[in-house]
Amino acid sequence: MTETPFSALRETDEDARRLARVLLRSARYAAMAFIGPDTGFPAVSRVLVGTDCDGVPVILVSGLSAHTKALAKDPRASLLTGEPGKGDPLAHPRLSVECLAEAVARDTPQHQRIRDRFLARHAKAKLYIDFVDFQFFRLQPQAASLNGGFGKAYRLEGADLVIRSDLTAEMASQWRAAVQDLLGTYPYLPTQAAAELKLGKKQDWRIYGVDMAGFDLISGDKLLRYEFKAPLHHPQDLALFMAKIANPVP
Amino acid sequence: MTETPFSALRETDEDARRLARVLLRSARYAAMAFIGPDTGFPAVSRVLVGTDCDGVPVILVSGLSAHTKALAKDPRASLLTGEPGKGDPLAHPRLSVECLAEAVARDTPQHQRIRDRFLARHAKAKLYIDFVDFQFFRLQPQAASLNGGFGKAYRLEGADLVIRSDLTAEMASQWRAAVQDLLGTYPYLPTQAAAELKLGKKQDWRIYGVDMAGFDLISGDKLLRYEFKAPLHHPQDLALFMAKIANPVP
Repeated sequence: MTETPFSALRETDEDARRLARVLLRSARYAAMAFIGPDTGFPAVSRVLVGTDCDGVPVILVSGLSAHTKALAKDPRASLLTGEPGKGDPLAHPRLSVECLAEAVARDTPQHQRIRDRFLARHAKAKLYIDFVDFQFFRLQPQAASLNGGFGKAYRLEGADLVIRSDLTAEMASQWRAAVQDLLGTYPYLPTQAAAELKLGKKQDWRIYGVDMAGFDLISGDKLLRYEFKAPLHHPQDLALFMAKIANPVP
Repeated sequence: MTETPFSALRETDEDARRLARVLLRSARYAAMAFIGPDTGFPAVSRVLVGTDCDGVPVILVSGLSAHTKALAKDPRASLLTGEPGKGDPLAHPRLSVECLAEAVARDTPQHQRIRDRFLARHAKAKLYIDFVDFQFFRLQPQAASLNGGFGKAYRLEGADLVIRSDLTAEMASQWRAAVQDLLGTYPYLPTQAAAELKLGKKQDWRIYGVDMAGFDLISGDKLLRYEFKAPLHHPQDLALFMAKIANPVP
Protein backbone atom coordinates (compact mmCIF):
# COMPACT_ATOMS: atom_id res chain seq x y z
CA MET A 1 0.00 0.00 0.00
CA THR A 2 1.10 3.53 -0.75
CA GLU A 3 1.03 6.56 1.52
CA THR A 4 -1.33 9.20 0.22
CA PRO A 5 0.32 12.39 -1.10
CA PHE A 6 -2.76 14.43 -0.26
CA SER A 7 -2.52 16.81 2.66
CA ALA A 8 -5.39 18.02 4.81
CA LEU A 9 -6.78 21.57 4.69
CA ARG A 10 -5.04 24.36 2.78
CA GLU A 11 -4.94 27.95 4.00
CA THR A 12 -8.02 29.78 2.71
CA ASP A 13 -7.13 32.58 0.26
CA GLU A 14 -9.09 34.97 -1.96
CA ASP A 15 -9.02 32.56 -4.92
CA ALA A 16 -10.65 29.88 -2.78
CA ARG A 17 -13.29 32.34 -1.55
CA ARG A 18 -14.05 33.49 -5.10
CA LEU A 19 -14.35 29.90 -6.37
CA ALA A 20 -16.70 29.10 -3.49
CA ARG A 21 -18.91 32.09 -4.30
CA VAL A 22 -19.03 31.13 -7.97
CA LEU A 23 -19.98 27.52 -7.14
CA LEU A 24 -22.78 28.69 -4.86
CA ARG A 25 -24.11 31.58 -6.97
CA SER A 26 -24.13 29.82 -10.34
CA ALA A 27 -25.96 26.69 -9.20
CA ARG A 28 -29.37 25.82 -10.66
CA TYR A 29 -29.93 23.15 -8.05
CA ALA A 30 -28.27 21.61 -5.03
CA ALA A 31 -28.29 18.48 -2.91
CA MET A 32 -29.62 19.53 0.48
CA ALA A 33 -28.83 17.56 3.65
CA PHE A 34 -31.22 17.90 6.57
CA ILE A 35 -32.27 15.96 9.63
CA GLY A 36 -35.16 13.60 8.84
CA PRO A 37 -38.15 14.98 10.79
CA ASP A 38 -39.42 11.62 12.05
CA THR A 39 -36.26 9.54 12.16
CA GLY A 40 -33.39 11.91 13.05
CA PHE A 41 -31.57 10.25 10.14
CA PRO A 42 -29.32 12.45 7.95
CA ALA A 43 -31.41 12.86 4.79
CA VAL A 44 -30.69 14.38 1.38
CA SER A 45 -32.86 15.68 -1.45
CA ARG A 46 -32.58 17.84 -4.54
CA VAL A 47 -33.74 21.46 -4.36
CA LEU A 48 -33.90 24.35 -6.81
CA VAL A 49 -31.64 27.16 -5.62
CA GLY A 50 -31.40 30.87 -6.23
CA THR A 51 -29.76 33.73 -4.35
CA ASP A 52 -31.05 36.80 -2.59
CA CYS A 53 -29.40 40.14 -3.46
CA ASP A 54 -26.98 39.71 -0.53
CA GLY A 55 -25.70 36.43 -1.97
CA VAL A 56 -27.56 34.28 0.58
CA PRO A 57 -28.88 31.12 -1.12
CA VAL A 58 -32.64 30.63 -1.29
CA ILE A 59 -34.69 27.53 -2.00
CA LEU A 60 -38.28 27.10 -3.17
CA VAL A 61 -39.86 24.01 -1.65
CA SER A 62 -43.22 22.28 -1.43
CA GLY A 63 -44.89 21.85 1.96
CA LEU A 64 -45.61 18.24 0.95
CA SER A 65 -41.93 17.33 0.85
CA ALA A 66 -39.96 15.85 3.72
CA HIS A 67 -37.30 18.57 3.60
CA THR A 68 -39.86 21.34 4.19
CA LYS A 69 -41.31 19.54 7.22
CA ALA A 70 -37.75 18.96 8.41
CA LEU A 71 -36.68 22.63 8.19
CA ALA A 72 -39.76 23.71 10.14
CA LYS A 73 -38.59 21.45 12.97
CA ASP A 74 -34.79 21.88 12.71
CA PRO A 75 -33.42 24.76 10.60
CA ARG A 76 -29.98 23.17 10.08
CA ALA A 77 -29.24 22.20 6.48
CA SER A 78 -26.28 21.87 4.12
CA LEU A 79 -26.18 22.59 0.40
CA LEU A 80 -23.84 20.85 -2.06
CA THR A 81 -23.23 22.69 -5.34
CA GLY A 82 -20.76 22.37 -8.23
CA GLU A 83 -21.56 19.75 -10.87
CA PRO A 84 -18.88 17.40 -12.22
CA GLY A 85 -17.89 17.43 -15.89
CA LYS A 86 -15.92 14.79 -17.78
CA GLY A 87 -13.43 12.44 -16.16
CA ASP A 88 -13.23 11.59 -12.46
CA PRO A 89 -16.17 13.32 -10.71
CA LEU A 90 -13.94 14.03 -7.69
CA ALA A 91 -11.51 16.07 -9.80
CA HIS A 92 -14.20 18.75 -10.19
CA PRO A 93 -14.72 21.48 -7.58
CA ARG A 94 -17.70 21.43 -5.26
CA LEU A 95 -18.86 23.37 -2.24
CA SER A 96 -20.75 22.26 0.83
CA VAL A 97 -22.35 25.08 2.83
CA GLU A 98 -23.79 24.64 6.32
CA CYS A 99 -26.80 26.92 6.70
CA LEU A 100 -29.62 27.91 9.00
CA ALA A 101 -32.96 28.09 7.20
CA GLU A 102 -35.31 31.06 7.68
CA ALA A 103 -38.78 30.93 6.13
CA VAL A 104 -39.60 33.95 3.94
CA ALA A 105 -43.01 35.44 4.77
CA ARG A 106 -45.35 36.09 1.83
CA ASP A 107 -46.66 39.55 0.97
CA THR A 108 -43.43 41.25 2.01
CA PRO A 109 -40.96 43.25 -0.14
CA GLN A 110 -38.37 40.56 0.65
CA HIS A 111 -40.64 37.85 -0.78
CA GLN A 112 -41.33 39.90 -3.90
CA ARG A 113 -37.61 40.49 -4.47
CA ILE A 114 -36.69 36.84 -3.93
CA ARG A 115 -39.54 35.69 -6.18
CA ASP A 116 -38.45 38.05 -8.99
CA ARG A 117 -34.82 36.93 -8.77
CA PHE A 118 -35.84 33.28 -8.62
CA LEU A 119 -38.04 33.52 -11.72
CA ALA A 120 -35.24 35.25 -13.64
CA ARG A 121 -33.12 32.16 -12.96
CA HIS A 122 -35.82 29.47 -13.13
CA ALA A 123 -38.42 30.59 -15.66
CA LYS A 124 -40.22 27.21 -15.51
CA ALA A 125 -40.86 27.66 -11.77
CA LYS A 126 -43.69 30.07 -12.70
CA LEU A 127 -45.87 26.96 -13.03
CA TYR A 128 -45.85 26.41 -9.25
CA ILE A 129 -44.13 29.36 -7.55
CA ASP A 130 -47.46 30.79 -6.37
CA PHE A 131 -49.02 27.55 -5.15
CA VAL A 132 -50.17 28.04 -1.56
CA ASP A 133 -48.01 25.21 -0.19
CA PHE A 134 -44.77 26.35 -1.84
CA GLN A 135 -42.50 28.57 0.14
CA PHE A 136 -39.07 30.17 0.10
CA PHE A 137 -36.39 29.74 2.70
CA ARG A 138 -33.25 31.85 2.97
CA LEU A 139 -30.38 29.56 3.95
CA GLN A 140 -28.01 31.73 5.96
CA PRO A 141 -24.44 30.39 5.55
CA GLN A 142 -22.71 29.48 8.81
CA ALA A 143 -19.56 27.79 7.45
CA ALA A 144 -18.49 25.93 4.32
CA SER A 145 -16.11 23.30 2.95
CA LEU A 146 -14.66 23.84 -0.50
CA ASN A 147 -13.12 20.93 -2.34
CA GLY A 148 -11.37 22.28 -5.42
CA GLY A 149 -10.25 18.81 -6.54
CA PHE A 150 -7.82 16.29 -5.08
CA GLY A 151 -5.70 17.80 -2.31
CA LYS A 152 -7.39 21.20 -2.57
CA ALA A 153 -9.63 21.35 0.50
CA TYR A 154 -10.45 24.61 2.25
CA ARG A 155 -12.63 25.67 5.14
CA LEU A 156 -14.60 28.92 4.83
CA GLU A 157 -16.62 31.11 7.15
CA GLY A 158 -20.27 31.87 6.55
CA ALA A 159 -19.37 35.55 6.08
CA ASP A 160 -17.20 34.62 3.06
CA LEU A 161 -20.41 33.78 1.19
CA VAL A 162 -22.51 36.83 2.10
CA ILE A 163 -22.31 40.23 0.36
CA ARG A 164 -21.98 42.86 3.08
CA SER A 165 -22.82 46.30 1.69
CA ASP A 166 -25.10 49.14 2.74
CA LEU A 167 -25.76 49.68 -0.96
CA THR A 168 -27.28 46.28 -1.69
CA ALA A 169 -30.85 47.59 -1.75
CA GLU A 170 -29.87 50.58 -3.91
CA MET A 171 -28.23 48.26 -6.44
CA ALA A 172 -31.25 45.95 -6.37
CA SER A 173 -33.44 48.84 -7.53
CA GLN A 174 -30.95 50.32 -10.04
CA TRP A 175 -29.31 47.46 -11.87
CA ARG A 176 -31.91 46.91 -14.61
CA ALA A 177 -31.69 50.48 -15.88
CA ALA A 178 -27.90 50.51 -15.51
CA VAL A 179 -27.47 47.31 -17.52
CA GLN A 180 -29.82 48.55 -20.25
CA ASP A 181 -27.66 51.69 -20.59
CA LEU A 182 -24.46 49.64 -20.65
CA LEU A 183 -25.78 47.28 -23.31
CA GLY A 184 -26.44 50.30 -25.51
CA THR A 185 -22.72 51.08 -25.36
CA TYR A 186 -21.40 47.50 -25.15
CA PRO A 187 -23.85 45.17 -26.88
CA TYR A 188 -21.47 42.19 -26.63
CA LEU A 189 -20.84 42.61 -22.90
CA PRO A 190 -22.54 39.32 -21.82
CA THR A 191 -20.68 37.34 -24.51
CA GLN A 192 -17.38 39.00 -23.56
CA ALA A 193 -17.94 38.23 -19.88
CA ALA A 194 -18.71 34.57 -20.69
CA ALA A 195 -15.62 34.39 -22.91
CA GLU A 196 -13.46 35.80 -20.09
CA LEU A 197 -14.77 32.98 -17.88
CA LYS A 198 -13.69 30.59 -20.67
CA LEU A 199 -17.18 29.11 -20.83
CA GLY A 200 -19.85 28.80 -23.46
CA LYS A 201 -18.43 31.22 -26.02
CA LYS A 202 -20.91 30.19 -28.65
CA GLN A 203 -23.99 30.67 -26.53
CA ASP A 204 -26.40 33.53 -26.38
CA TRP A 205 -25.77 34.90 -22.87
CA ARG A 206 -27.99 37.41 -21.11
CA ILE A 207 -27.42 39.31 -17.84
CA TYR A 208 -30.29 38.52 -15.46
CA GLY A 209 -29.07 39.96 -12.18
CA VAL A 210 -26.45 42.32 -10.76
CA ASP A 211 -25.37 42.84 -7.16
CA MET A 212 -22.49 44.57 -5.40
CA ALA A 213 -20.20 41.51 -5.82
CA GLY A 214 -20.86 40.45 -9.41
CA PHE A 215 -23.50 39.58 -11.95
CA ASP A 216 -25.39 36.56 -13.24
CA LEU A 217 -25.55 35.31 -16.82
CA ILE A 218 -28.07 32.88 -18.29
CA SER A 219 -28.27 31.00 -21.57
CA GLY A 220 -31.11 28.48 -21.72
CA ASP A 221 -30.44 25.93 -18.97
CA LYS A 222 -26.94 27.24 -18.26
CA LEU A 223 -26.00 29.76 -15.58
CA LEU A 224 -22.71 31.63 -15.13
CA ARG A 225 -21.65 33.77 -12.21
CA TYR A 226 -19.20 36.62 -12.84
CA GLU A 227 -17.63 37.68 -9.53
CA PHE A 228 -15.91 41.06 -9.55
CA LYS A 229 -12.28 41.00 -8.36
CA ALA A 230 -13.49 43.11 -5.42
CA PRO A 231 -17.01 44.29 -4.51
CA LEU A 232 -18.20 47.63 -5.87
CA HIS A 233 -17.92 50.59 -3.51
CA HIS A 234 -20.85 52.37 -5.09
CA PRO A 235 -23.53 51.32 -7.61
CA GLN A 236 -22.05 53.83 -10.05
CA ASP A 237 -18.82 51.81 -10.10
CA LEU A 238 -20.72 49.24 -12.15
CA ALA A 239 -20.16 51.15 -15.41
CA LEU A 240 -16.40 51.25 -14.74
CA PHE A 241 -16.17 47.52 -14.01
CA MET A 242 -18.26 46.63 -17.05
CA ALA A 243 -16.16 48.87 -19.32
CA LYS A 244 -13.09 46.89 -18.27
CA ILE A 245 -14.80 43.64 -19.28
CA ALA A 246 -15.88 45.13 -22.61
CA ASN A 247 -12.42 46.66 -23.26
CA PRO A 248 -9.94 44.22 -21.73
CA VAL A 249 -6.32 45.32 -21.49
CA PRO A 250 -4.62 43.35 -24.26
CA MET B 1 -52.74 31.81 -4.77
CA THR B 2 -53.53 28.44 -6.31
CA GLU B 3 -54.04 25.09 -4.64
CA THR B 4 -51.34 22.64 -5.62
CA PRO B 5 -52.52 19.76 -7.82
CA PHE B 6 -49.74 17.51 -6.53
CA SER B 7 -50.72 14.72 -4.18
CA ALA B 8 -48.53 13.13 -1.53
CA LEU B 9 -47.07 9.63 -1.81
CA ARG B 10 -48.15 7.21 -4.54
CA GLU B 11 -48.50 3.49 -3.99
CA THR B 12 -45.16 1.80 -4.66
CA ASP B 13 -45.31 -0.55 -7.66
CA GLU B 14 -42.77 -2.62 -9.62
CA ASP B 15 -42.09 0.22 -12.07
CA ALA B 16 -41.13 2.50 -9.18
CA ARG B 17 -38.88 -0.17 -7.68
CA ARG B 18 -37.16 -0.78 -11.03
CA LEU B 19 -36.61 2.95 -11.59
CA ALA B 20 -35.15 3.24 -8.09
CA ARG B 21 -32.73 0.36 -8.74
CA VAL B 22 -31.65 1.89 -12.04
CA LEU B 23 -31.04 5.30 -10.44
CA LEU B 24 -28.93 3.73 -7.70
CA ARG B 25 -27.02 1.19 -9.80
CA SER B 26 -26.14 3.45 -12.72
CA ALA B 27 -24.73 6.32 -10.65
CA ARG B 28 -21.08 7.32 -10.98
CA TYR B 29 -21.30 9.55 -7.93
CA ALA B 30 -23.75 10.63 -5.28
CA ALA B 31 -24.37 13.39 -2.77
CA MET B 32 -24.00 11.78 0.65
CA ALA B 33 -25.65 13.25 3.75
CA PHE B 34 -24.12 12.41 7.11
CA ILE B 35 -23.99 13.83 10.62
CA GLY B 36 -21.04 16.24 11.03
CA PRO B 37 -18.67 14.49 13.46
CA ASP B 38 -17.87 17.59 15.53
CA THR B 39 -20.98 19.69 15.09
CA GLY B 40 -23.93 17.29 14.79
CA PHE B 41 -24.92 19.41 11.78
CA PRO B 42 -26.45 17.63 8.77
CA ALA B 43 -23.57 17.66 6.26
CA VAL B 44 -23.31 16.71 2.59
CA SER B 45 -20.43 15.83 0.28
CA ARG B 46 -19.81 14.17 -3.08
CA VAL B 47 -18.67 10.56 -3.14
CA LEU B 48 -17.80 8.08 -5.88
CA VAL B 49 -20.23 5.16 -5.80
CA GLY B 50 -20.23 1.60 -7.02
CA THR B 51 -22.25 -1.47 -6.12
CA ASP B 52 -21.41 -4.81 -4.58
CA CYS B 53 -22.69 -7.93 -6.37
CA ASP B 54 -25.82 -7.93 -4.17
CA GLY B 55 -26.72 -4.45 -5.36
CA VAL B 56 -25.68 -2.74 -2.12
CA PRO B 57 -24.03 0.61 -2.89
CA VAL B 58 -20.37 1.04 -1.95
CA ILE B 59 -18.28 4.17 -1.58
CA LEU B 60 -14.50 4.69 -1.66
CA VAL B 61 -13.45 7.49 0.70
CA SER B 62 -10.31 9.08 2.10
CA GLY B 63 -9.64 8.97 5.83
CA LEU B 64 -8.74 12.67 5.62
CA SER B 65 -12.28 13.65 4.69
CA ALA B 66 -14.99 14.70 7.10
CA HIS B 67 -17.44 12.08 5.84
CA THR B 68 -15.08 9.20 6.67
CA LYS B 69 -14.56 10.47 10.21
CA ALA B 70 -18.33 10.94 10.46
CA LEU B 71 -19.21 7.38 9.40
CA ALA B 72 -16.76 5.93 11.92
CA LYS B 73 -18.71 7.75 14.62
CA ASP B 74 -22.27 7.45 13.28
CA PRO B 75 -22.96 4.96 10.46
CA ARG B 76 -26.15 6.68 9.30
CA ALA B 77 -25.92 8.22 5.83
CA SER B 78 -28.14 8.99 2.84
CA LEU B 79 -27.21 8.85 -0.85
CA LEU B 80 -28.84 11.01 -3.53
CA THR B 81 -28.49 9.70 -7.11
CA GLY B 82 -30.09 10.52 -10.46
CA GLU B 83 -28.68 13.51 -12.34
CA PRO B 84 -30.93 16.11 -13.98
CA GLY B 85 -30.89 16.68 -17.72
CA LYS B 86 -32.33 19.62 -19.64
CA GLY B 87 -35.21 21.73 -18.41
CA ASP B 88 -36.44 22.00 -14.83
CA PRO B 89 -34.04 19.97 -12.64
CA LEU B 90 -36.98 18.86 -10.48
CA ALA B 91 -38.70 17.23 -13.48
CA HIS B 92 -35.95 14.56 -13.54
CA PRO B 93 -36.13 11.45 -11.34
CA ARG B 94 -33.87 11.07 -8.30
CA LEU B 95 -33.54 8.64 -5.44
CA SER B 96 -32.56 9.24 -1.84
CA VAL B 97 -31.51 6.10 0.06
CA GLU B 98 -31.08 5.96 3.83
CA CYS B 99 -28.24 3.58 4.63
CA LEU B 100 -26.12 2.18 7.43
CA ALA B 101 -22.40 2.22 6.58
CA GLU B 102 -20.22 -0.85 7.23
CA ALA B 103 -16.46 -0.55 6.71
CA VAL B 104 -15.03 -3.22 4.39
CA ALA B 105 -11.93 -4.88 5.88
CA ARG B 106 -8.87 -5.12 3.63
CA ASP B 107 -7.30 -8.43 2.62
CA THR B 108 -10.66 -10.19 2.45
CA PRO B 109 -12.40 -11.77 -0.55
CA GLN B 110 -15.17 -9.19 -0.09
CA HIS B 111 -12.65 -6.32 -0.40
CA GLN B 112 -11.10 -7.89 -3.51
CA ARG B 113 -14.52 -8.30 -5.15
CA ILE B 114 -15.63 -4.77 -4.32
CA ARG B 115 -12.28 -3.34 -5.51
CA ASP B 116 -12.53 -5.20 -8.85
CA ARG B 117 -16.10 -4.06 -9.44
CA PHE B 118 -15.26 -0.49 -8.46
CA LEU B 119 -12.29 -0.29 -10.86
CA ALA B 120 -14.43 -1.66 -13.71
CA ARG B 121 -16.72 1.34 -13.14
CA HIS B 122 -14.13 3.97 -12.15
CA ALA B 123 -10.90 3.19 -14.03
CA LYS B 124 -9.30 6.46 -12.87
CA ALA B 125 -9.66 5.43 -9.22
CA LYS B 126 -6.66 3.13 -9.71
CA LEU B 127 -4.53 6.21 -8.95
CA TYR B 128 -5.58 6.16 -5.29
CA ILE B 129 -7.64 3.03 -4.59
CA ASP B 130 -4.71 1.33 -2.78
CA PHE B 131 -3.61 4.32 -0.70
CA VAL B 132 -3.48 3.27 2.94
CA ASP B 133 -5.98 5.90 4.09
CA PHE B 134 -8.62 5.10 1.48
CA GLN B 135 -11.31 2.64 2.40
CA PHE B 136 -14.55 1.13 1.20
CA PHE B 137 -17.86 1.21 2.99
CA ARG B 138 -20.91 -0.84 2.07
CA LEU B 139 -23.99 1.33 2.58
CA GLN B 140 -26.75 -1.07 3.52
CA PRO B 141 -30.10 0.39 2.37
CA GLN B 142 -32.69 0.82 5.14
CA ALA B 143 -35.37 2.78 3.26
CA ALA B 144 -35.59 5.12 0.29
CA SER B 145 -37.57 7.97 -1.24
CA LEU B 146 -38.03 8.02 -5.00
CA ASN B 147 -39.08 11.21 -6.69
CA GLY B 148 -39.90 10.40 -10.30
CA GLY B 149 -40.74 14.04 -11.12
CA PHE B 150 -43.52 16.37 -10.00
CA GLY B 151 -46.27 14.51 -8.18
CA LYS B 152 -44.51 11.13 -8.50
CA ALA B 153 -43.18 10.44 -5.01
CA TYR B 154 -42.81 6.92 -3.64
CA ARG B 155 -41.47 5.36 -0.47
CA LEU B 156 -39.42 2.16 -0.74
CA GLU B 157 -38.05 -0.40 1.67
CA GLY B 158 -34.36 -1.14 1.96
CA ALA B 159 -35.03 -4.68 0.70
CA ASP B 160 -36.32 -3.24 -2.60
CA LEU B 161 -32.74 -2.19 -3.39
CA VAL B 162 -30.91 -5.38 -2.44
CA ILE B 163 -30.55 -8.48 -4.66
CA ARG B 164 -31.53 -11.48 -2.57
CA SER B 165 -30.30 -14.68 -4.21
CA ASP B 166 -28.33 -17.70 -3.03
CA LEU B 167 -26.67 -17.68 -6.44
CA THR B 168 -25.09 -14.22 -6.20
CA ALA B 169 -21.60 -15.60 -5.50
CA GLU B 170 -21.88 -18.18 -8.27
CA MET B 171 -22.84 -15.46 -10.76
CA ALA B 172 -19.99 -13.26 -9.53
CA SER B 173 -17.51 -15.98 -10.48
CA GLN B 174 -19.20 -17.01 -13.75
CA TRP B 175 -20.36 -13.85 -15.50
CA ARG B 176 -17.13 -12.96 -17.33
CA ALA B 177 -16.91 -16.27 -19.15
CA ALA B 178 -20.66 -16.29 -19.82
CA VAL B 179 -20.60 -12.79 -21.34
CA GLN B 180 -17.58 -13.64 -23.50
CA ASP B 181 -19.50 -16.64 -24.89
CA LEU B 182 -22.60 -14.54 -25.49
CA LEU B 183 -20.68 -11.82 -27.32
CA GLY B 184 -19.36 -14.49 -29.70
CA THR B 185 -22.97 -15.20 -30.68
CA TYR B 186 -24.36 -11.65 -30.27
CA PRO B 187 -21.57 -9.13 -30.89
CA TYR B 188 -24.01 -6.18 -30.82
CA LEU B 189 -25.62 -7.16 -27.53
CA PRO B 190 -24.36 -4.12 -25.53
CA THR B 191 -25.45 -1.71 -28.27
CA GLN B 192 -28.84 -3.42 -28.52
CA ALA B 193 -29.33 -3.25 -24.76
CA ALA B 194 -28.45 0.48 -24.75
CA ALA B 195 -30.83 1.07 -27.66
CA GLU B 196 -33.63 -0.72 -25.79
CA LEU B 197 -33.03 1.70 -22.89
CA LYS B 198 -33.37 4.51 -25.46
CA LEU B 199 -30.01 5.94 -24.44
CA GLY B 200 -26.70 6.56 -26.13
CA LYS B 201 -27.33 4.63 -29.34
CA LYS B 202 -24.24 5.98 -31.02
CA GLN B 203 -21.82 5.10 -28.26
CA ASP B 204 -19.49 2.18 -27.92
CA TRP B 205 -21.06 0.34 -24.97
CA ARG B 206 -19.34 -2.48 -23.10
CA ILE B 207 -20.74 -4.85 -20.40
CA TYR B 208 -18.62 -4.48 -17.27
CA GLY B 209 -20.66 -6.40 -14.69
CA VAL B 210 -23.52 -8.88 -14.43
CA ASP B 211 -25.51 -9.95 -11.38
CA MET B 212 -28.73 -11.86 -10.76
CA ALA B 213 -30.87 -8.73 -11.29
CA GLY B 214 -29.29 -7.15 -14.35
CA PHE B 215 -26.10 -5.93 -15.94
CA ASP B 216 -23.99 -2.79 -16.17
CA LEU B 217 -22.89 -1.00 -19.34
CA ILE B 218 -20.14 1.56 -19.67
CA SER B 219 -19.07 3.94 -22.44
CA GLY B 220 -16.35 6.37 -21.40
CA ASP B 221 -17.81 8.49 -18.59
CA LYS B 222 -21.33 7.15 -19.07
CA LEU B 223 -22.92 4.28 -17.19
CA LEU B 224 -26.16 2.44 -17.92
CA ARG B 225 -27.92 -0.11 -15.77
CA TYR B 226 -30.06 -2.77 -17.47
CA GLU B 227 -32.44 -4.29 -14.92
CA PHE B 228 -34.00 -7.61 -15.93
CA LYS B 229 -37.82 -7.67 -15.77
CA ALA B 230 -37.41 -10.23 -12.97
CA PRO B 231 -34.25 -11.60 -11.35
CA LEU B 232 -32.67 -14.72 -12.83
CA HIS B 233 -33.51 -18.01 -11.12
CA HIS B 234 -30.22 -19.60 -12.11
CA PRO B 235 -26.98 -18.21 -13.62
CA GLN B 236 -27.68 -20.28 -16.73
CA ASP B 237 -30.83 -18.19 -17.33
CA LEU B 238 -28.50 -15.38 -18.38
CA ALA B 239 -28.11 -16.75 -21.91
CA LEU B 240 -31.89 -16.88 -22.32
CA PHE B 241 -32.41 -13.31 -21.09
CA MET B 242 -29.59 -11.99 -23.28
CA ALA B 243 -30.92 -13.81 -26.35
CA LYS B 244 -34.22 -11.97 -25.88
CA ILE B 245 -32.39 -8.63 -25.88
CA ALA B 246 -30.41 -9.59 -29.00
CA ASN B 247 -33.53 -10.92 -30.78
CA PRO B 248 -36.38 -8.73 -29.60
CA VAL B 249 -39.93 -9.78 -30.53
CA PRO B 250 -40.89 -7.30 -33.28
